[in-house]
Order: sequence, then structure tokens, then C-alpha cells
Amino acid sequence: MNAPTDRMASALLLPQPYVLFLGDTTVRGYAKTAFGLRDWAPEKCVGELRLPGATVTAGLDAVTAAEARARGARALVIGVANQGGVIPASWRVSLIEALEAGLDLIAGMHMRLSDIPELVEAARRLGRQLIDVRVPPRQIPVGTGRKRSGKRLLTVGTDCALGKKYTALALFRAFERRGIAADFRASGQTGIMIAGGGIPMDAVVSDFEAGAAELLSPDADADHWDIIEGQGALTHPAYAAVSLGLLHGSQPDVFVVCHEPGRTEMLGMPGFPVTSVEEITELTTRLGRRTNPAIRCGGYAFNTAAMTDDAAAELMAKESRRLGLPVADPMRGGPAFEALVASCLSAD
Amino acid sequence: MNAPTDRMASALLLPQPYVLFLGDTTVRGYAKTAFGLRDWAPEKCVGELRLPGATVTAGLDAVTAAEARARGARALVIGVANQGGVIPASWRVSLIEALEAGLDLIAGMHMRLSDIPELVEAARRLGRQLIDVRVPPRQIPVGTGRKRSGKRLLTVGTDCALGKKYTALALFRAFERRGIAADFRASGQTGIMIAGGGIPMDAVVSDFEAGAAELLSPDADADHWDIIEGQGALTHPAYAAVSLGLLHGSQPDVFVVCHEPGRTEMLGMPGFPVTSVEEITELTTRLGRRTNPAIRCGGYAFNTAAMTDDAAAELMAKESRRLGLPVADPMRGGPAFEALVASCLSAD
Repeated sequence: MNAPTDRMASALLLPQPYVLFLGDTTVRGYAKTAFGLRDWAPEKCVGELRLPGATVTAGLDAVTAAEARARGARALVIGVANQGGVIPASWRVSLIEALEAGLDLIAGMHMRLSDIPELVEAARRLGRQLIDVRVPPRQIPVGTGRKRSGKRLLTVGTDCALGKKYTALALFRAFERRGIAADFRASGQTGIMIAGGGIPMDAVVSDFEAGAAELLSPDADADHWDIIEGQGALTHPAYAAVSLGLLHGSQPDVFVVCHEPGRTEMLGMPGFPVTSVEEITELTTRLGRRTNPAIRCGGYAFNTAAMTDDAAAELMAKESRRLGLPVADPMRGGPAFEALVASCLSAD
Repeated sequence: MNAPTDRMASALLLPQPYVLFLGDTTVRGYAKTAFGLRDWAPEKCVGELRLPGATVTAGLDAVTAAEARARGARALVIGVANQGGVIPASWRVSLIEALEAGLDLIAGMHMRLSDIPELVEAARRLGRQLIDVRVPPRQIPVGTGRKRSGKRLLTVGTDCALGKKYTALALFRAFERRGIAADFRASGQTGIMIAGGGIPMDAVVSDFEAGAAELLSPDADADHWDIIEGQGALTHPAYAAVSLGLLHGSQPDVFVVCHEPGRTEMLGMPGFPVTSVEEITELTTRLGRRTNPAIRCGGYAFNTAAMTDDAAAELMAKESRRLGLPVADPMRGGPAFEALVASCLSAD
């Protein structure tokens, strides 16, 4: 969340601040990227741009492209997805107007900006960039396993889509509040837009997966922390390759296991139970030791959004006693979360 | 090694038989692909094509492109690498002559055939294919973890480059000799040329790694075996992502651990000791159980090329007693190897 530094030179860097493009969207669920940016990087958003017919808002000032530029925006971020991840023809006039107003375009959808000839032509004519954050940097080196300076924390999980990004962001904020030098290192598209840089780890060719993770969290000062957004799960039948490459290349000193109580089956993976937090803790320690023999679990981040306050507090207290480490919901904060932060920072 | 079947329809398929192109090579070490094809797929090689100045031979009949075509060849395989993996200008006339003679071109070098405009133009004009085997198929699906019919054996290793491909090929041959329906499933460039198909697993985007492995060994008859060429090692600091995706997607019933006694440090990875065979056995069993709960270790394949016969035999006998499973060098064969084959085939 800091301004991109030289240390990120090899990873993707995004022009900021942004104006959030919401298109003509009427379905809130499609605007996750816009909401993520509003929640985690409001200081980087100068306003929102909606088309006639849109009913969804991120609650920011409504602006035109020219107004956004006048407010300092350097890029328009497509903050909504459509069914199928396409960029509909009805948006194109507005996107070209944004290029003409002096804004670059940023998208993280399946359909690439650079695959739309009208946009490519306009960007070329106007000297503007089309940035698809799902495209990893070129010429990623093979991993070396070399121990890098600085400290690293990686969020891992018992499944996909249960809070690894939010946990990393909350820990990063908590570290900053304590005056600790830290960077949030994004490994997925929304995280990259929030951070203004990062590497889409799931889009990297597998031979270079660990090398990309090494690039993502480069050498740093001895007391600096990189808080790295995790991906997938080591036991995920489809995505474990991403998780293991990211673990090896991140060589974390500390990891936090993210979990959603009550989720019994992996998302979209019928027949595959969610792995237990103990199993993920043990596998992460065992496999992570390869590139950092000092790796340890700092605690557990539970996503209790679906639970009442009392039920969540009771469950987390019970699980903390059982597991012998702090268990907290980063979105709820409070003493449990402060205990988790302290545990991550404690030198064993 | 069987003729490509419909079941491989989504993976890469190569036109066969081949003529092996040796260029003007004078360094034997650069001709590994040609030697691998001669050793493992001689029935697919109608001859070799050398340029003036070449001193290296694979020992096949010297032919021209037209003669190769007359002998039934459908493709010319570039069987040599150069320093840097480039395709030198001095080869291009011959390669275009091959296209004109009716042959497709196949290469597995870093430099792609499709990046050489003269070849692209000639292939288009003549209606021929340029096939870069390092390019994975398009539109690989995400893995599902669905249990497929048929049986699968995967070779795994304590490091790279110590015999996973040769072990898989030797086991495949042994299964065939016993009258067992089997396919060799290639996951690397030389293996793909030998098999005539396969997927270059190290070139697949990591999100699709397990999905690619699922594609590589599709549903088959209940008593059919896929013998799958392994890649990397689960503890390799650079390449473990490839190994884990391949393990999950292959869902092997049996794995064989490949190891080179005396190798203490991972190849090109200073400071990283080779993992013990016990550790690889345990990790493979534990992680592989996710997609095949019945996974088991069939035994060990030692690469003893650097040892005397007596020393190799003594070591393997000792290690077999210690590990409680057959240990054999597939290149040496003999009763130890037959015991390994029997162990792989034994229903527990």
C-alpha cells in the first residue's frame, strides 16, 4: 500500500490514483473489485464513473473522465466484471473518452484490454497504456531459493476465497499502526489494484512460480516486513501448484492460516472436504522449511462473517485454546486480533 | 509409445515417423534429444540428416529430406541443441528444404520455430506445420480432482535430472512385455518427442497445472496403466509447483521414487541438499492422497551409472532391506528391476 518502490521494479506497477469505472452495472456482486478498492485503498480513488442505467455505486463522487483527470487520477480501473468477464461494446466509447482525457486503462478481467482493437488503436494514438493485471511480467527468472534479507509473512488457507487477501491487508495495516516498516505484496488481481503493484501468481508459468514469488518480495531492511497475499491451498486439487510455488518463493518467517468455520466442502470442488487448520499448519511448516528452516505459524484468521458476534467469539476462543495460538477474525478486530498481530511479531 | 489415441486428443500430438536433424553439430552433449529418440523410439526414426561439418551421428542411415519422406517420415525433428538454444541461420536452408519435401518441423528448443519468419512463411506456403513442443495446448481446463478410470503410475524424484523419464520408459516397456495395456505419458520435451504426444508440464500456467495433468492421463479401461513421466521434486526450491500439480492431477495409484546415490546437493541449487528418499516417499504419499487415497510407493529407481556393478548391486540390496521395498536401476535391469515391476503391479 506504500508507493511502489524500486524494490518492486520487476513486478507490475500501476499508475495511481484511480477513477473507478462501474459501467452500467445493476448487480452488486459484479462490482467486487470496486468495493475492494473503496474499502482498502480509498485514498487512491478520486471518484467513480457510471454509465446511464447503472444502479450500483461504490459511494464515491460521480465524475467524468475529464473531472477525474483534473482531480489527479492517472488511470481508470474497470471495477466491475460482467458475466463471462467480457468488456461489452457499450463501455467502449467511455473507455476511449478516458484515454482521450489522459487516463491509462487498467483491467483484471478474462478478456484483455489489449485484445480490443479500438482500444489498442486509441491508446497508441494517444500515447496511453492498457494494463491487464492478469498478465504477469515478462522474463521472470527461475527460483534460486537464496535467503533474502528482511522478514516475511504469508497468509495461507484451508481453501480458496475465504480471506487470505483481507487478512494480509488487515495485518499490514496493523503493522503500520505499530510503526513497523511493511509492504503489502499482492499476488492476485484485486490485491494488485489495491497495492498498485504485484504479480498475478496464478497466471505465471509453473516453472517460474517460485521465481515469481522471489521477485514479489525482494531483499529489504532487516526489520522490514513483507505481508504477502496467499493463494489457493496446499491441498487444493486444482490450485496447489500456485500455493506451493508461492510458499517456496516467499520463504516466510511467519504464516497465518485463513479458514472459514462451517465451510465443509472446497468451493466448486464437490467431494473434496475443506482441509483442517491443523493439517494446513503442519504441511505449510514442513514444506516451507525447505526455503526457510525458521518458518512458524503465527496464528489463525477465521472468516466469521456468517456468524453472530457471540457465536464467533465463543468459537474463536475455544479454537485458540485447542490450537495453542491466537485465533481472530481480522474484520472484527479487537483483542483477539491484537493477540494475533503480537504473535506474528514475537521473536520465538 | 502406442499410436496416439483419441484419448490424447486434447494433448499435443506429433506427426510420425521422424527424420532426426543433427545440423552441423560437433559436440555429442548437444545431441541428447536425438540419442533419446534413437534409444527409446528407434522404430519411429527413418534416418538422420546431417549438414557438412557435422561429426556427431546417432548411428542411423544418412538421408536427405526427400529420401526421408520416401521412407515414410512425416516430420523432421531438430535433435540437437546449440549453446543458447537457438536455431542458427546455417540450418535454415535445410529446414525449408524439409518443408518443401513434405515434412513438418518439430523442435523443443527455447527459440521457437514459429518465431523465425522465413520458416513461418515457407510453412504457410507449403501447408506444413511448425511444432514447438515446449508450447502447451491451448484452453487447458482447471483441474477437477474427479477420479478417472484406469490405473496410473507416476515417477517422482529427490531432484531434477536423475532418471524420472528413463524410469517411466523402462517401466512402460516392462509392463508391455508382460502383456499389460499401458501408455507412456510424457511431461517434458524429449519425452514428448519419444511418445509422439504429451504436455510440457513446466510450460503450463500454474493455475492450470493440475488440469493439464488430468488431461495428460485421461479415463481408460479399468486394467490399463498410464506410466507418467515425473518432473522436478516436491522439495525443489524452484520447481516444486510443477511436481505438486503433476502429482495432484495424475492421481497415481503407484509412484516410484527416482534417486541418484552420491548426489548430495540439488543440481544448480547450491546449499540445498538432495532430499532423502524416505522424505519424498512420505511427502508424495501424504500430498498425493488428496486426489487418490489409495496411493502407495511401488519402490525405488536408483541411477547408478557412476558406480561399479558390484558397488551398485550391494548398495541397492542394502537400501532395499532398509526401505522394505524393491530398489533397482532400470538401466541395469535384472531381478531387482523385475521385483520393482512386480511390486508396482501388486494389488495391496
